[in-house]
Amino acid sequence: MAKDSLKIIPLGGLEQIGMNITAFEYGETIIVVDCGLAFPDDEMLGIDLVIPNVSYLKDNIERVKAFFITHGHEDHIGALPYVLKEVNVPVYSTKLTLGIIKHKLEEHQMLDYVDMRTVTFGDTVDMGKIKVEFIRTNHSIADAAALAITSPAGTIVHTGDFKVDYTPVYGDAIDLQRFAELGSQGVLALMADSTNAEKPGMTMSEKTVGKTLDHIFSEEVDNRIIIATFASNVDRVQQIINTAQKYGRKVCVEGRSMNTYISTAVELGYIKLPDNILIEIEDTVNFPPNRLVIITTGSQGESMAALSRMANSTHRKVSIGPSDTVIFSSHPIPGNEKNVSKVINELMIKGAKVIFQDTHVSGHACADDLKLIYTLVKPKYAIPVHGEYRQRSAQKEIAKSLGIPSEDILLINSGDVLELSPEKAGVIGRVASRPVMVDGLGVGDIGNAVLRDRQYLSENGLVVISMAVYLEEGIVVNGPEIVSKGFVYVKESETLIEEAKFVAAQTFEYCVHKNYSDIGRIRNEIKSALSDFFWKNIKRRPMILPIIMKV
Amino acid sequence: MAKDSLKIIPLGGLEQIGMNITAFEYGETIIVVDCGLAFPDDEMLGIDLVIPNVSYLKDNIERVKAFFITHGHEDHIGALPYVLKEVNVPVYSTKLTLGIIKHKLEEHQMLDYVDMRTVTFGDTVDMGKIKVEFIRTNHSIADAAALAITSPAGTIVHTGDFKVDYTPVYGDAIDLQRFAELGSQGVLALMADSTNAEKPGMTMSEKTVGKTLDHIFSEEVDNRIIIATFASNVDRVQQIINTAQKYGRKVCVEGRSMNTYISTAVELGYIKLPDNILIEIEDTVNFPPNRLVIITTGSQGESMAALSRMANSTHRKVSIGPSDTVIFSSHPIPGNEKNVSKVINELMIKGAKVIFQDTHVSGHACADDLKLIYTLVKPKYAIPVHGEYRQRSAQKEIAKSLGIPSEDILLINSGDVLELSPEKAGVIGRVASRPVMVDGLGVGDIGNAVLRDRQYLSENGLVVISMAVYLEEGIVVNGPEIVSKGFVYVKESETLIEEAKFVAAQTFEYCVHKNYSDIGRIRNEIKSALSDFFWKNIKRRPMILPIIMKV
Repeated sequence: MAKDSLKIIPLGGLEQIGMNITAFEYGETIIVVDCGLAFPDDEMLGIDLVIPNVSYLKDNIERVKAFFITHGHEDHIGALPYVLKEVNVPVYSTKLTLGIIKHKLEEHQMLDYVDMRTVTFGDTVDMGKIKVEFIRTNHSIADAAALAITSPAGTIVHTGDFKVDYTPVYGDAIDLQRFAELGSQGVLALMADSTNAEKPGMTMSEKTVGKTLDHIFSEEVDNRIIIATFASNVDRVQQIINTAQKYGRKVCVEGRSMNTYISTAVELGYIKLPDNILIEIEDTVNFPPNRLVIITTGSQGESMAALSRMANSTHRKVSIGPSDTVIFSSHPIPGNEKNVSKVINELMIKGAKVIFQDTHVSGHACADDLKLIYTLVKPKYAIPVHGEYRQRSAQKEIAKSLGIPSEDILLINSGDVLELSPEKAGVIGRVASRPVMVDGLGVGDIGNAVLRDRQYLSENGLVVISMAVYLEEGIVVNGPEIVSKGFVYVKESETLIEEAKFVAAQTFEYCVHKNYSDIGRIRNEIKSALSDFFWKNIKRRPMILPIIMKV
Repeated sequence: MAKDSLKIIPLGGLEQIGMNITAFEYGETIIVVDCGLAFPDDEMLGIDLVIPNVSYLKDNIERVKAFFITHGHEDHIGALPYVLKEVNVPVYSTKLTLGIIKHKLEEHQMLDYVDMRTVTFGDTVDMGKIKVEFIRTNHSIADAAALAITSPAGTIVHTGDFKVDYTPVYGDAIDLQRFAELGSQGVLALMADSTNAEKPGMTMSEKTVGKTLDHIFSEEVDNRIIIATFASNVDRVQQIINTAQKYGRKVCVEGRSMNTYISTAVELGYIKLPDNILIEIEDTVNFPPNRLVIITTGSQGESMAALSRMANSTHRKVSIGPSDTVIFSSHPIPGNEKNVSKVINELMIKGAKVIFQDTHVSGHACADDLKLIYTLVKPKYAIPVHGEYRQRSAQKEIAKSLGIPSEDILLINSGDVLELSPEKAGVIGRVASRPVMVDGLGVGDIGNAVLRDRQYLSENGLVVISMAVYLEEGIVVNGPEIVSKGFVYVKESETLIEEAKFVAAQTFEYCVHKNYSDIGRIRNEIKSALSDFFWKNIKRRPMILPIIMKV
């Protein structure tokens, strides 16, 4: 690889939702944008979370200068506690984002040895050959930034997750002027958020949710109002608090992550609390239902979140009834539809009124917003990011419709090394990018073999057959005994289990008769005999573990 | 229970999607409407399918006269092969529905001993105290029927799954006249499909899909067209065939269930095939891409279906490339969104164009269609069916808006015994209705304990620790040995496993020292010591199975 061209190396985020992390490299300088986690796929049984593979950064650690974080969502910051342990370089971001990161590092007891630096919009951080400017955008969390990454090869504009909100709740609208200036100066490539690229039109302003909430509060004059939303959406929380204040209701906050985000946002001045509006859950008994609002986690139907516990009557302090109106200020993230529906059903069965229409707007730019950004930035190359292939393809179609030639629109993969210059662009190599699974304290110690076993056990269960044998004499000293888990209801399957023991004993006798002396071979014979036996009898294939102890 | 009032006993279908089955009972007569299966929930690991609990029917078998099947979808017919083994009474339905049932019974080698009787629309089957009339409706499968169930207590109209299609592809529109006549004569209760009750407006005609398909075929003049849809939607298939014929393309059918449904429908005259339009997959090589249409299964992203295999390059005869246009003539059923997206991504990565907009309409009535039926039928009672609580609540709101008093709208549960008369309605008892899980040949032998073990194994894996001991002397003759599955990658965790063996050996020594003679107690001590050990070391809790063999 030539040392003096710009290389863009996404280490995650392009094959899956989440886990956004991209290295930018010029000569001796590497900077990294974002460091997110992904939540496990359905096939990753028992996995807690997934983090990017950063071996490329570790292998080049002396050249890695810093992380630049666009905003405070888990898919952009969640892997920092893991990655900073191995690649400990300064972290730059805006105030709220850094506040959220600090809280996370504190939980991992890492606060003391990470160098965190606050930037404000308009600041440019100079890393030598690469300079990074923070530009204000709008998103479903305050303080989100786009980055202008300038090297001798030219300027790359990376939008982060963004939307265009002319009337944001907190702070200013996206800095369209700066995007325009950069466009006039010349931009080598635009890396823009593809999440909503398939959706036509423009994304609605966060303020429209406030209007809907006002309308609902004005109608629900008798009921307690419970609102579930994303804990990190501090502007949404601010609007709920303002509406509660207007209608004379006290606000109670439920759910650990909701409390964490709100206290960070209040502390840093991103949420303004009217005096005495917040009350503790214990004090809600002192107010009639129509003087109360509960803001809660659980808008995605997560089984352990506060709203789900309320719906299932396992919440210790809130019970749901006909004097409740529950608002889902959220859309189900793909994959969560059934869980959300389950919670809605439970709430309605308990008599609550449930509202889930017009109470949420997206934090991502739709097709026409993307056209605006492209038209302001006028990039030579388009590199759609933040989305699966289908969403990135949709952005490609948008870029094409604006006159960017097909060959200058680059749909690359995680692990690709993309070399860019005004003259040419191309993938010139690959680096390791297979995601790393975290389970408990184990980082990366679970691979596909373990997952395949978990999958097999989950569908078929297990039979352990054990016997102690005096092999030389061909005598079974103890056993065969059978323990099964996840296979059949043992009490109703006694005959089956007894017959299986008999099959195992017979197979052992056969092995003795054949003078097999290798325990491994005997084990395999028994395993295969039992496997056939169960398949013939009940068409199931439990995992069979024969334990043969020589004495 | 009084013997001479009408009782309605739903045995399934009201807490979950699918598994529709309802008993109607008057005096000595019981008839059953539908006999469907449900697909397993995410928690039902390894379960093949779920069927209703029919112990109430078995306990009253001498009074059960017949099954009346509204249409040929799995959630209305799928449990017949299981239930007819225990409750073998005649099955009445329309021609196509019966054709599909016959095929199913043939696969279960039950064709010879089931009494199947074809009815045509307008027919009334006389079961003594209960008479059942078949009324034509529209749905996403041809030959769907509503039922008018008349007893001395009055007439119940059961819509089955239905939509109002003024311009159906095959046959006539829903028999609105008959609904109106029944309404003027007086209807005791309406049991109507709630699936789309939350959706405003009217459901579009199936013919609109034909128009979209025509438009797509007229534009995609160069590509092979692959269309994925529901195998049972014979009208959709007919429209695809007609469009292919118009644009001079041959049609190839891929996927086992697609072939089954199409051949049944052709045989019974529900699909008309132009001469020589169908070709075998092997013959597609003789035609250029733009002379071909492939109709395939897999519209829900099912991993084993033909389209998924094409997308993953594991289909032996079709490979996807830039000269393919793939149409999803379907919407993802809730829960399938992620799988469908995965298939779309794979197809696009291989260069195919993928179309999934305006190429499907629902088979279920929306809110305004329901208002039409209510207004024609004018029932005293409304009993919303076919839907989760949220959809049935939405139908309740519709019924209320049409002037039916709240207390006459009955949201009942599976297992409820609802007694109905013109004077009063109420739940007077409960019968067994816990669904029965089928896994391999086992019907109902898997309960919650087995599922809990499967769940636990799937998330945590398993450690089997075994030793042969001479307990009287406190000597370990062989072991401890450890086998783990789905826990850690053993080769990289040798130290952990060695230490775990040491912990087990130490614990055994401790038990000997304490003079424990009960193997169960020793087993528990070892289990708990190992559990603590693993939690302390890697924060995981595998299932631990200690096997201690006395010699």
